Amino acid sequence: MALIVQKFGGTSVGNLDRIANVAAKVRGFRERGDDVVVVVSAMGGETDRLIDLARSVQEPPDPRELDVLLSTGEQVTIALLAMTLQGLGCAARSYTGHQVRIHTDSAHSKARIVSVDHQRIQADLETGRVVVVAGFQGMDEDGDITTLGRGGSDTTAVALAAALGAGECRIYTDVDGVYTTDPRVVPEARRLDSLTFEEMLELASLGAKVLQIRSVEFASKYGVPLRVLSSFEDGPGTLIGPDVEDDPMEQPFISGIAFNRDEAKITVIGVQDRPGVAFSILGPVAAGNIEVDMIVQNSGADGTTDFTFTVHRNDFARTLQIVRERSSQWGASEVTGDDRIVKISLVGVGMRSHAGIASRMFQALAAESINIQMISTSEIKISVVVDEKYLELGVRALHTAFGLDENVVSGERS
Amino acid sequence: MALIVQKFGGTSVGNLDRIANVAAKVRGFRERGDDVVVVVSAMGGETDRLIDLARSVQEPPDPRELDVLLSTGEQVTIALLAMTLQGLGCAARSYTGHQVRIHTDSAHSKARIVSVDHQRIQADLETGRVVVVAGFQGMDEDGDITTLGRGGSDTTAVALAAALGAGECRIYTDVDGVYTTDPRVVPEARRLDSLTFEEMLELASLGAKVLQIRSVEFASKYGVPLRVLSSFEDGPGTLIGPDVEDDPMEQPFISGIAFNRDEAKITVIGVQDRPGVAFSILGPVAAGNIEVDMIVQNSGADGTTDFTFTVHRNDFARTLQIVRERSSQWGASEVTGDDRIVKISLVGVGMRSHAGIASRMFQALAAESINIQMISTSEIKISVVVDEKYLELGVRALHTAFGLDENVVSGERS
Repeated sequence: MALIVQKFGGTSVGNLDRIANVAAKVRGFRERGDDVVVVVSAMGGETDRLIDLARSVQEPPDPRELDVLLSTGEQVTIALLAMTLQGLGCAARSYTGHQVRIHTDSAHSKARIVSVDHQRIQADLETGRVVVVAGFQGMDEDGDITTLGRGGSDTTAVALAAALGAGECRIYTDVDGVYTTDPRVVPEARRLDSLTFEEMLELASLGAKVLQIRSVEFASKYGVPLRVLSSFEDGPGTLIGPDVEDDPMEQPFISGIAFNRDEAKITVIGVQDRPGVAFSILGPVAAGNIEVDMIVQNSGADGTTDFTFTVHRNDFARTLQIVRERSSQWGASEVTGDDRIVKISLVGVGMRSHAGIASRMFQALAAESINIQMISTSEIKISVVVDEKYLELGVRALHTAFGLDENVVSGERS
Repeated sequence: MALIVQKFGGTSVGNLDRIANVAAKVRGFRERGDDVVVVVSAMGGETDRLIDLARSVQEPPDPRELDVLLSTGEQVTIALLAMTLQGLGCAARSYTGHQVRIHTDSAHSKARIVSVDHQRIQADLETGRVVVVAGFQGMDEDGDITTLGRGGSDTTAVALAAALGAGECRIYTDVDGVYTTDPRVVPEARRLDSLTFEEMLELASLGAKVLQIRSVEFASKYGVPLRVLSSFEDGPGTLIGPDVEDDPMEQPFISGIAFNRDEAKITVIGVQDRPGVAFSILGPVAAGNIEVDMIVQNSGADGTTDFTFTVHRNDFARTLQIVRERSSQWGASEVTGDDRIVKISLVGVGMRSHAGIASRMFQALAAESINIQMISTSEIKISVVVDEKYLELGVRALHTAFGLDENVVSGERS
């Protein structure tokens, strides 16, 4: 007799058969006596179809009107799922973001949830109904329809779970959990039983695109445990929750290895080592609406320094041009760039309390003769940049070195 | 500088080119200085597609959830039209039935409009915006989405025109006005410049499916003049308004000839002529959810009577069965039926004050040797039932006999 909030993404509701599959799953929970709130996305591909439609009439589409258009996608899904549930004899009622009063700010296409009125949902749950809510959408103060941006349905689910005090927010997706690394690169990668919000944030932002970062931040803020599971196979999935382990000895050092093939690096060599130089380099880059990821600077002995940063590969040429145009004013001797690099990151709350993780990482890479071009560290993450040809070799070496591909006893981390 | 409410149906917004055509038309009015509120339907075929989708998951679909689903159709159109208008440099904003607060009762799929809040529309008009409103939909007291039924967008347009005090409600469709009869049957049929609400009601209910009956009733109730025009060709269309002519001499006798091929008749012969017999025959028919159109009863001399009524052809077999099962209790000697009949109706407010219309009608039919099987009359309508093979012949004969296919001086009736 628990309250469970479940979220099914576009792939999981991609056609009527899959919606029937979702309905059967939901009914299973009802039959066990749980109260269920289901959050759904638009049927797979529908949002892209609507965006294309909008672009063919206005470029760029008006943000307010685009949200009116896009929000129809989830509205179709909620009605179809509620009908399917009813067809299975399971009382159900659907709500749009408007109806369930998911209040947001007015930042169309990337609105943030301000509050959720849960009275109506609560009343339906009390009469034994399954409540089906449109993800990704809300309304602002003026009653205008807003959308939360890509992956916003995850955030809707977390917000409802927080408002309703649900024991768990279950995110059903097309993978059966969060893995130690990408199984396509390391076949020995294994599903994690659990990890912390912080670890998930580092893994998600580094490319393990299972959950939307914002929903994890949201869950972390409100302490809502998230569980990532497969829509198509049964299994425990991965629980993402607060860092509850008191004894760090119980934790493995590393929870996973993320990597990112989409970066390129730019180095400004021989910059005058004086206050303000970092801003004078990155200011014009930011003004060009280019996002910067890693930034590394080494103080040199001769009053100059080398300044290196990474950007998305798509922004590489433009960034190089911006920087080269201004290099003389910094006294730079040269600007070099390389878009054939990858970033590999070790993530784990365990590394906080364990010395020597970094050196073990560098040793493992050195043993494979992989040259490290950049290093950047945080409390629970160590990232290195290496030549892209070493991606698979490097990730596999680290996966083995940190014991991730051993046959770990199930439940060790949960 | 007038306020015009315009409604464009599914065919008129059937694809992006047609939406662009609508936008150009709307911009034309804006450029002449008019304020414009546009009501649109779902893109042609979309509502049927959604109904099919619903039926494939639940049969019959839950009415509340079906309305959630169907209302997405117009929501897509309003967003696309608002964007298209903006693309033409014409400030525009879209509203769903929810947002513009079209309050209805809770009769899902056939809800009736209770009230309209027009403050928000008014505010937008004052800032020079075109307001685009989703037709066909509203919300009930609980905030649930409702739909008004087929053709409900016409009703939305009339309700907005009434609430905003618009001078005219323009219904754009795929025909250029209301005709004296169906031009496919009588090539000489001509467009009427104007007719009264009552005439339109009789013509509409008899099968000239240009306007939804309810929208005409609504327009009549609130005295909102309706104009039916073509989306695709310029022209004055047909104005449907209050009966303003004081002098009946100015009016032609007949405004149009309607017909209906969808009826079948059933006759109960030799029924005992006593009180309650009509109810005892029609009660079980009504209980079977079968709608009855014409009812004719002749008192006989021998204490018995023949009772005849018409139903939709689709209900013919079922009605016949219901009536035959009970015929003995009325003392009926026989029950006969015929589903190869048509109803032809003369409509015109002029006939109120002109004697001899009926006899002229019967004479014209007799001249073609057309036998009349049933007759039914109202203040502004005379209907006859004849063998279906006489449909075209009968309609043409009447069209000529009442001077409808002459070259009438334009504006005679306006």
